Amino acid sequence: MMQGVVHIPADLKSLEDIVASGFGVVEQVFADQLVSDLAPVDQMCEHVERYRGKMLRPMLVLLCGAAANPDLESLLLAGSSDQIMTNAHTTCGAVCEMVHMATLVHDDVLDEADIRRRGKTINAMKGNETSVILGDYLIASAYELCSSLNSPIPSRIVGKASAVMCSGELLQLHNRNNFELDESTYFEILKRKTAALIGAACELGALATLGFDQQSTPTVQALLGFGSDLGIAFQIQDDVLDLTGTEATVGKSVGKDLEKGKLTYPLIHHLANSKSKPRSLQLIESISQGDESGLPELITLVEQTGSIDATQQKAQSFVDRAKDRLSTIPDGPGRPMLDLIADAVISRTH
Amino acid sequence: MMQGVVHIPADLKSLEDIVASGFGVVEQVFADQLVSDLAPVDQMCEHVERYRGKMLRPMLVLLCGAAANPDLESLLLAGSSDQIMTNAHTTCGAVCEMVHMATLVHDDVLDEADIRRRGKTINAMKGNETSVILGDYLIASAYELCSSLNSPIPSRIVGKASAVMCSGELLQLHNRNNFELDESTYFEILKRKTAALIGAACELGALATLGFDQQSTPTVQALLGFGSDLGIAFQIQDDVLDLTGTEATVGKSVGKDLEKGKLTYPLIHHLANSKSKPRSLQLIESISQGDESGLPELITLVEQTGSIDATQQKAQSFVDRAKDRLSTIPDGPGRPMLDLIADAVISRTH
Repeated sequence: MMQGVVHIPADLKSLEDIVASGFGVVEQVFADQLVSDLAPVDQMCEHVERYRGKMLRPMLVLLCGAAANPDLESLLLAGSSDQIMTNAHTTCGAVCEMVHMATLVHDDVLDEADIRRRGKTINAMKGNETSVILGDYLIASAYELCSSLNSPIPSRIVGKASAVMCSGELLQLHNRNNFELDESTYFEILKRKTAALIGAACELGALATLGFDQQSTPTVQALLGFGSDLGIAFQIQDDVLDLTGTEATVGKSVGKDLEKGKLTYPLIHHLANSKSKPRSLQLIESISQGDESGLPELITLVEQTGSIDATQQKAQSFVDRAKDRLSTIPDGPGRPMLDLIADAVISRTH
Repeated sequence: MMQGVVHIPADLKSLEDIVASGFGVVEQVFADQLVSDLAPVDQMCEHVERYRGKMLRPMLVLLCGAAANPDLESLLLAGSSDQIMTNAHTTCGAVCEMVHMATLVHDDVLDEADIRRRGKTINAMKGNETSVILGDYLIASAYELCSSLNSPIPSRIVGKASAVMCSGELLQLHNRNNFELDESTYFEILKRKTAALIGAACELGALATLGFDQQSTPTVQALLGFGSDLGIAFQIQDDVLDLTGTEATVGKSVGKDLEKGKLTYPLIHHLANSKSKPRSLQLIESISQGDESGLPELITLVEQTGSIDATQQKAQSFVDRAKDRLSTIPDGPGRPMLDLIADAVISRTH
């Protein structure tokens, strides 16, 4: 699971194995929850498979669950994997991935303007209505699965994180085509839209180990903070890749954010530091209106103000802060493993 | 709250008063849950106000909660309203309405074809994307609110009912423009799409009174069954009104179901009994393609096969079955009040 993303040193292999086996259970729980007695529903759920991504959220649930365990090292030595990865961990892992997948499905719902402009590409989908209901089915199934645990607290965490996530997306929509977007609003959007659920994943993993009534303990708080910071770094990196990646490496068309009228950090930094701001704004506006021809010139201008480097430094600072927070969690192999994941989040090219 | 819908006899006034005051709390809980620290989110939530409807689901939560109480009569006499309507009742009431409202918001998301055909009318809305995220915000807020209760069981009921509801909508979408739709699939859609949440509302009301661990008790099961049957009757009546109502009485444009390619009971009955089926199918197809001119002729044909009457008898049979189920719940004013509501569900003209 972590192969290809990070190089795992020999002394962390036993932890990796435990997490990998937990991962297999997460995938099974995920699939079982979505099975329907209605054939057409099952068919539409297959459609969801194409959204399978990096599975970052379940990986963090499992890893934070292991890292929060004060006896991790001795349990690993004793081969007591069932005391490290329990039903609570794998359930929370599947729940977080399902909520995330619902947002991906709903992201594909297009507006009138988009349909006019990009109607052809959406035909691979079964239409807006199906995307909406399929996303709703995923969200409802995630909540149903989450409430199978014997405490209302995980449901509370997931419900709240989802509501915050939506508020971030509403804030982003509200700022659509606002090319004067400031840095603090950009970070407010990121904190809500991406960091809330990734933070919740880390918190849930820790709580699944320590007990759902342990929300205020330092280890849980540290891992929640770790996840939030990592989530921000992850989204900044996504924003860089949207601008500088190629369709071949990123796996999706680039410049999509601008096309949707979303200003991201590299551009905010660029506009604040550019001597040719009117030209940049002109290019940004035409790209947001569907004319992609100005993208190469814009990227050149963005590089001239050092804005890609500045963005990567910003992402690095959140990764550093995330790693610093780990100093208060139990000693053991969990900490260096989370360090590796944190680094991978911003070194990735897709 | 129930004024205008049903005439409440004098001996049920004290129960009505209790329910009405619970209703005020439901509205407050609902509003409080949706408050956001972000102004743009609050603005968009105001938009949701226009979906305020009959509030059938919270009314059923409160009434079933009262009806499940074996001491209802003596508590009413003693004026102990706080022992009849608790935080659990009003919370569940607000949750059910919020889930329902989310589905109404998502129902407004249009497909490519719809946008081409009906793009103008949708401009009152803020676009597909906002509708999707706003609906998601409502669902997430509903789950967050539900998990504030001290048991995971209400979350389990609401999560499951929502997933079943989505599966019903997916089944309906799958049968879009299927003018050979049979009666049993139609009822399967209704059971899932409408009856699941209304049944859950009644079940939650009873559980809020008797304790969330009492799911298998006869009173809870009877009220769950009452709600399911009533939900089916309610949806059949909706389907009749969509066909025979006028825009003035129904408050929305009629013939909308057919326009969306949805075959409903009056038409299923008509097609099964018509001697001019090819002509009817011809009319149905042209209406579903956006040409409404054939609607009056179709309605005349539907009336000739007695299909409106047959549909109303069908709805009546579900109301009768719903009322029969009440024989096992505690004696007292709850039962006749639920009878009145059940009758009102199919005598309504909007």
